[in-house]
Amino acid sequence: MVQNQLTQRIVRMAQEAKQAAYVLAGIETSVKNAVLKKMAQNILSHQKFLIAENQKDLKEAQRKHDANVLVDRLTLDDKRIQEMARCLSDTAKLKDPVGEAMETFRRPNGLLIKKVRVPIGVIGIIFESRPNVTSDCIGLCLKSGNAVILKGGKEAYYSNQAIFSVLQKALKGTLIPMGAIQLVSSNDRQAVHVLLGLDQYVDVVIPRGGEGLIHFVAQHSTIPVIKHYKGVCHTYVSEFADLNKAHAICYNAKVQRPGVCNAMETMLVHRDSAIRFLPGMIADFKKAGVEIRGCPMTRKIVKSDIKKATEKDWEEEYLDLILSVRVVNNLQQAIDHINMFGSHHSDAIVTEDKKEAEAFLKSVDSACLYVNASTRFTDGYQFGFGAEVGISTDKLHARGPMGLEELTTYKYLVYGKGQIRQ
Amino acid sequence: MVQNQLTQRIVRMAQEAKQAAYVLAGIETSVKNAVLKKMAQNILSHQKFLIAENQKDLKEAQRKHDANVLVDRLTLDDKRIQEMARCLSDTAKLKDPVGEAMETFRRPNGLLIKKVRVPIGVIGIIFESRPNVTSDCIGLCLKSGNAVILKGGKEAYYSNQAIFSVLQKALKGTLIPMGAIQLVSSNDRQAVHVLLGLDQYVDVVIPRGGEGLIHFVAQHSTIPVIKHYKGVCHTYVSEFADLNKAHAICYNAKVQRPGVCNAMETMLVHRDSAIRFLPGMIADFKKAGVEIRGCPMTRKIVKSDIKKATEKDWEEEYLDLILSVRVVNNLQQAIDHINMFGSHHSDAIVTEDKKEAEAFLKSVDSACLYVNASTRFTDGYQFGFGAEVGISTDKLHARGPMGLEELTTYKYLVYGKGQIRQ
Repeated sequence: MVQNQLTQRIVRMAQEAKQAAYVLAGIETSVKNAVLKKMAQNILSHQKFLIAENQKDLKEAQRKHDANVLVDRLTLDDKRIQEMARCLSDTAKLKDPVGEAMETFRRPNGLLIKKVRVPIGVIGIIFESRPNVTSDCIGLCLKSGNAVILKGGKEAYYSNQAIFSVLQKALKGTLIPMGAIQLVSSNDRQAVHVLLGLDQYVDVVIPRGGEGLIHFVAQHSTIPVIKHYKGVCHTYVSEFADLNKAHAICYNAKVQRPGVCNAMETMLVHRDSAIRFLPGMIADFKKAGVEIRGCPMTRKIVKSDIKKATEKDWEEEYLDLILSVRVVNNLQQAIDHINMFGSHHSDAIVTEDKKEAEAFLKSVDSACLYVNASTRFTDGYQFGFGAEVGISTDKLHARGPMGLEELTTYKYLVYGKGQIRQ
Repeated sequence: MVQNQLTQRIVRMAQEAKQAAYVLAGIETSVKNAVLKKMAQNILSHQKFLIAENQKDLKEAQRKHDANVLVDRLTLDDKRIQEMARCLSDTAKLKDPVGEAMETFRRPNGLLIKKVRVPIGVIGIIFESRPNVTSDCIGLCLKSGNAVILKGGKEAYYSNQAIFSVLQKALKGTLIPMGAIQLVSSNDRQAVHVLLGLDQYVDVVIPRGGEGLIHFVAQHSTIPVIKHYKGVCHTYVSEFADLNKAHAICYNAKVQRPGVCNAMETMLVHRDSAIRFLPGMIADFKKAGVEIRGCPMTRKIVKSDIKKATEKDWEEEYLDLILSVRVVNNLQQAIDHINMFGSHHSDAIVTEDKKEAEAFLKSVDSACLYVNASTRFTDGYQFGFGAEVGISTDKLHARGPMGLEELTTYKYLVYGKGQIRQ
């Protein structure tokens, strides 16, 4: 009976979102922008409230002795709240992709064909941990004319509710229906199960989170899924690397914010660079509290105590101050390692050899590939998309950072004068 | 044991396709074009063989008293074989999308970001009836650098095998691995089941066919799916229509080739046009052998004997000389009918009123929308894509006719000089 009520609530939510999506698709850009600005203001004017609600989640996490990185991802402080507000007002400034003519061409029979961007419709986002996802995603979906149904993790229950309620107020008295943004407040997994079966109302589901969540969604969804899966990111320090650049890039990729998907998890080093590069690099990592797990050659070169890396390490997303290190014989071995063990997210090469860089870019099958830069730049904001729904590790529709354009689809408008097919 | 052997064969096929895809992604355009031209020649030089093999399928269809439209879709004659060859040589002439820089931009921190087209990888295509799909899809996948695994319907078993064997010969002695094109020759549904679980090797599955096939694939696939579902296409004859144009367009959309997905299944007519338009139109349809199923108003206006349309008719893809007809009160009713009962494939309005046309284009949620033209133009070849993998009725990645570009994805290449994230 309770299950039935939950099911009914989710179905009604999806139906309202679908109806709202038809309205939202035709809403003027200026109306959407005004709402986004109001949302940003609401976030700032409720800073104390948001932090107080976030404290409830943090206390629960501490009570359960959750890992430091999880607590980091969960925490809302003044700076992060201001960042949330800035993301919303930046989204208001971005170009509205809806209605853009992507291509226009005329056929020999006189038919004029326009390919125009339109909203996808209703977007379901199922995520864990970071509460700013709630506001970032609502902002981007709204701007791109999509209705959105959010389902956050129970570890951020109070934070997500608080952010949602503050944003929702901005819709009151506007042309945008309240059904355009929705938050599933139940922590019952049954809610997700029901949502994933509503393909007649929901056009796409985007899961962001750990292995368990992604597999659950991919297996149970009858709605198309764009996975935001783990980031097992690599940096390859070639024999042609500028080792000062390599040191700065690797340090940044591992240490600056280890709990995120674009942080480096495995460092690959060419054997000719290893002797000059590894001892100093690893000493600095250790000073920063990074645990190193090395291949036999790494452990031979670096005399200090290093844990042995197992094959499981090559596939693991630590999301923590842990790094696996492997010495390779050549570029091809680095490429093969990344294609085999990586998650096709973000990978970098440090080299001064342009030909080698191009070979790496061509052969590594990942969403974002870097030459002489930190993998930490894989991010919608860093790419100039204003904000991001997340980082797609899928190949279809959207790959890498998903911004506004990735939240649209298109239709073909064909203008004739009575043409018929011969 | 037999099942195990089948499973092993499909897994090996997918593994070979994956390996071939890595090679294929780096193959020069000129090599791919030479193979496509050779394939076209092989089709033409084996015309007799192809027709003889097709006869085996046709005999079986006749023995089973299959519907005329099915037999039409299955038939290979000289003209259709020449069309298959022309599609392949046209594909050779098309621009290779692989490597194209879709966007290039520089960030304030100096990072240069290039978004470049790359092949998707391994594409699975599961289809029914029309044997030309085998050659069209092999051509397009090859040109776009993708390996392809095809699984045709058992009704076209001999035809598909014959086409495949003729095309396969063109790979011998080239740089393209034989594993790049594969045909699942078993008619056992278990083969499809196994294939749909191989997400580690196959990047996307495209099902083309009837309701049963599409649902089976959508439900069982752990691989992302781009559905090529039914076409319940409409033409709306407005009160502002040029009724001569309307007559020609509706006749063409229904009669010229009724067994295909872009044929009209429902004709909607504004009540002010109905009295002048319907009697003559329906008389001509009847002369062409079209069975009419009408709404009460249609049956009132047209005095001759017309079957009553039920709600089931509005949702049905007849793929035959059958047409449902409904008189509506206004544009909004036409739009609502199409959005509710249609399959979001192709829909047309016949009107001389530009504002009305734009309202229709904006509000109907379909892949292809026409003003004063036949829905029969929804086709990759008619759109100028050279050929087509099919018509996507999904909204993600590809919508409407899928040509070469829709068979690619992209990756971001980021060029730095040692940039790290602040």
